[in-house]
Amino acid sequence: MTAFFRKLQGDEMSRLSVHEYCEVEKHPVTVLLHNIRSMYNVGSVFRTADAAAIEKVIITGYTATPPRKEIDKTALGAQESVRWEYFPHPKDILGKLKTEGVTICGLEITENSIPYNGVNMDSFPMCLILGNEVDGIDSDVLQLCDHVLEIPQFGTKHSLNVSVAAGIALYEMVKIYRQQKPVTAIR
Amino acid sequence: MTAFFRKLQGDEMSRLSVHEYCEVEKHPVTVLLHNIRSMYNVGSVFRTADAAAIEKVIITGYTATPPRKEIDKTALGAQESVRWEYFPHPKDILGKLKTEGVTICGLEITENSIPYNGVNMDSFPMCLILGNEVDGIDSDVLQLCDHVLEIPQFGTKHSLNVSVAAGIALYEMVKIYRQQKPVTAIR
Repeated sequence: MTAFFRKLQGDEMSRLSVHEYCEVEKHPVTVLLHNIRSMYNVGSVFRTADAAAIEKVIITGYTATPPRKEIDKTALGAQESVRWEYFPHPKDILGKLKTEGVTICGLEITENSIPYNGVNMDSFPMCLILGNEVDGIDSDVLQLCDHVLEIPQFGTKHSLNVSVAAGIALYEMVKIYRQQKPVTAIR
Repeated sequence: MTAFFRKLQGDEMSRLSVHEYCEVEKHPVTVLLHNIRSMYNVGSVFRTADAAAIEKVIITGYTATPPRKEIDKTALGAQESVRWEYFPHPKDILGKLKTEGVTICGLEITENSIPYNGVNMDSFPMCLILGNEVDGIDSDVLQLCDHVLEIPQFGTKHSLNVSVAAGIALYEMVKIYRQQKPVTAIR
């Protein structure tokens, strides 16, 4: 008897090669990692960025850049497929992005934050900023944001793991975008 | 000048105490972790389960159970607030859950899988099964599922990190549920 929920093998998933991936159109989202302490978190965001097919990872502050074995351990090769760029401070790139029409969003819990699923197509292209594991996004960086997006939390803790929060938010952004835009360019 | 996006302090977030959390109504979702190798992933799922206020974590197979210092390191205390239970094999509990009307969903890439955001209120209460980091959910466990949910992946890799995938899927389930049900019982 053939199993109804037969697992697909790797070669049945028609994943892109690194070369094909570099050429294909991406979802118009960039993630900015500012002062992330854990290189495992950085690598994990690279892996998610590859799966979500977003434009780029921007690395700022003391966040480590590839190649580092700790990043590779959780990126599992995604550090080779995902474009990335380093700047000492977020303001070194956010002003340029704003002039290009990119909406700057922080992922944080602040006054005047909006639900993470409350953005619309006007917010694309988007740069999503993630901050330090303990202190979140620096106040001066928050003031450069057009919106602050908040993932609701109903429990006893004050935050989610930064790479889990990145996954929740990035996949929501991709879902919102794909509900409106033809998706033929990205499988 | 007062910052428009002022970060909230911990005591402004009105988080629940562990005691209050145990008493409050939860979202009707249970997550089952079968043969998860990394205790850091287990702890991370506990942290997300607390934030998403789901019913319970069910631990099966060789997945480690609290207390373990590696679990604590990423759960950050959520192993104290989130209910959990251990069974040697998923079938030891899934049959009972089915008789109680719980919909069994696997998170995997299979033939006949549906998009992770394609479930409706008929699928609650739900048990969401997550499998091993490399091999995914065992085939015999998949055949016990009512649905298999798939997170779309557009890049070069074959999977997401298991705790990131858990976060994406659990928050989507909570969002779908809360769109239909009054939420006053859960802040």
